[in-house]
Amino acid sequence: MKNLTIALDVMGGDKGPLITISSAIMAVEQQANLHLILCGDENIISAELKKQSFSKHPRLTISPTTEVVEMTDKPSFALRYKKNSSMRRALDLVREGKAQACVSAGNTGALFATAHFVLKTLPGVERPALITSLPTHGQDRHVFMLDLGANVFCDANVLYQFAIMGAVMAEQVDGLKQPKVALLNMGEEEIKGSDHIKLAASELAANPEVNYIGFVEGSDIFTNKADVIVCDGFVGNVALKTCEGVARLVYEKAKDFFNQSFFARLLGKLLTPALKKLLKSLNPDQYNGASLIGLRGIVVKSHGNANAKAFYSAIMEAVKEVERQVPDKIKAKLEQGLLPRP
Amino acid sequence: MKNLTIALDVMGGDKGPLITISSAIMAVEQQANLHLILCGDENIISAELKKQSFSKHPRLTISPTTEVVEMTDKPSFALRYKKNSSMRRALDLVREGKAQACVSAGNTGALFATAHFVLKTLPGVERPALITSLPTHGQDRHVFMLDLGANVFCDANVLYQFAIMGAVMAEQVDGLKQPKVALLNMGEEEIKGSDHIKLAASELAANPEVNYIGFVEGSDIFTNKADVIVCDGFVGNVALKTCEGVARLVYEKAKDFFNQSFFARLLGKLLTPALKKLLKSLNPDQYNGASLIGLRGIVVKSHGNANAKAFYSAIMEAVKEVERQVPDKIKAKLEQGLLPRP
Repeated sequence: MKNLTIALDVMGGDKGPLITISSAIMAVEQQANLHLILCGDENIISAELKKQSFSKHPRLTISPTTEVVEMTDKPSFALRYKKNSSMRRALDLVREGKAQACVSAGNTGALFATAHFVLKTLPGVERPALITSLPTHGQDRHVFMLDLGANVFCDANVLYQFAIMGAVMAEQVDGLKQPKVALLNMGEEEIKGSDHIKLAASELAANPEVNYIGFVEGSDIFTNKADVIVCDGFVGNVALKTCEGVARLVYEKAKDFFNQSFFARLLGKLLTPALKKLLKSLNPDQYNGASLIGLRGIVVKSHGNANAKAFYSAIMEAVKEVERQVPDKIKAKLEQGLLPRP
Repeated sequence: MKNLTIALDVMGGDKGPLITISSAIMAVEQQANLHLILCGDENIISAELKKQSFSKHPRLTISPTTEVVEMTDKPSFALRYKKNSSMRRALDLVREGKAQACVSAGNTGALFATAHFVLKTLPGVERPALITSLPTHGQDRHVFMLDLGANVFCDANVLYQFAIMGAVMAEQVDGLKQPKVALLNMGEEEIKGSDHIKLAASELAANPEVNYIGFVEGSDIFTNKADVIVCDGFVGNVALKTCEGVARLVYEKAKDFFNQSFFARLLGKLLTPALKKLLKSLNPDQYNGASLIGLRGIVVKSHGNANAKAFYSAIMEAVKEVERQVPDKIKAKLEQGLLPRP
């Protein structure tokens, strides 16, 4: 791909430009064909770029805005009254075709609502979904999981669409052929779970284009049993955050253990870097970002308290999705008659 | 409490009497006022007791049955056609007042359905719930969580009743005063989540007898923010099993790390016992059992592949609940006008 342009919501996130500008500089230094449009307060951005001696970088452009979506703004409020915000501008640039993706660490609810309104869903997609990858057993392996909280409840149709969308992500981003798709349930038996999950299961099973392997349980998320795990946003959000909570608990318990004696403290010093690395990977939301898929454009959400490295990872995730043309691939799959229902 | 009688489903679980008899012997040896009724195949039980030189123990009685609920039996099938099973007998003994509690490692769905049918729910309780405790930050601290899978979906009334029931468990089993009760949600803000969760929240907030602290997220389960966390069975089951899955993943990743070099292998040898202990505590379902509460009797469920120590722990959990008279306390709380709704 020749040129890549990505719009950044520079003001979003707990620390805004202090973090996002550093990440932007890292990204353009790393990726020679990447152009970034920095949406936000012109004075702040100019000052920050100057401080970091990057005032006149040919691939960093400022798109000045006057408003900021606060972390406490209600989605409907942001959507209606913050039309000149950095978040809105970044999404508008994607809609206008001036950028190929948007990255934001801002207010999650506002980003979902605004992205949905500005970009619209792809034909055949009722709802966008939040997707990320989680580590699994083995070296450098992982699983895609969706929805992680964009929708409270998802009916059978929506779960079905998410399964198709998730499979496209696994194919395009990870290069998997016929990724194994599963529905997250409270048991593996066919009789388990809610009616809408059972309906989604029977429709996925009837579709020869999807490599649907059945139900999996929470304990199977990390075992490579499936490449794509589909659930509603409530369940996915609880699972993702439970994962984060367990990681933190293991870290705390390990710290307690390593404080028990001089010898244990020594062991602790030796092992802490490896432990931190593992536990960070169990907090993907915070460290790698998550993507909002099913829209007519690419939107990557970085965590509100992401550091510069995490926001950089989110930008590189957006680069990957642009290069692999994820929305076009989803659209094509849906048009291939994979969604026979209205 | 003078005498305690508990009925055991000896035939339940993947290994049945091979495990459960050893646990029964450990329990009566440990607890001088405990009488156990061993429900199951008389020949097998007698042979196993003889093998372990406990043929004539005065506090081990056999209640002979001819059928076994298989792990693959559908709940409705077990309920209708296995009336002379060890599981059914153990529950019947509780209903008849001949035992004060039942412990089973058998087919979970069948146990729920049969316990619900045989024992009935307490007045004011619409549905029984599966509850267990999970470890939290700090030494020997934990949190009660319910429902863990007895019910797929729970409406506001049921969530409200679960909150009361969970608070009684925390008060009676852990001796906490005014335990902090929370609803598990996909965010802490009041506007988040489904309508039935918001309704349950407003009703709990309006009840001065409940120390309701609001919504918590999956990442808060382990932080001591709440003493009791309430959710529907689907979400609770996914959260519990995700917890188990992360524990196994951490163990696998640690093993990989410890295999990298001679020095790492040495470290691994030193740390494996501590690591195993921590990760076991994150698998409470398997190691301590879970209780089915809201019924007119005490039912403790041990994991299907529980070992003798785990099944012993489940018996001791039942002892504790009998001593603290958990069902009576739940009944009293509900009668105190805590459930004004029909």
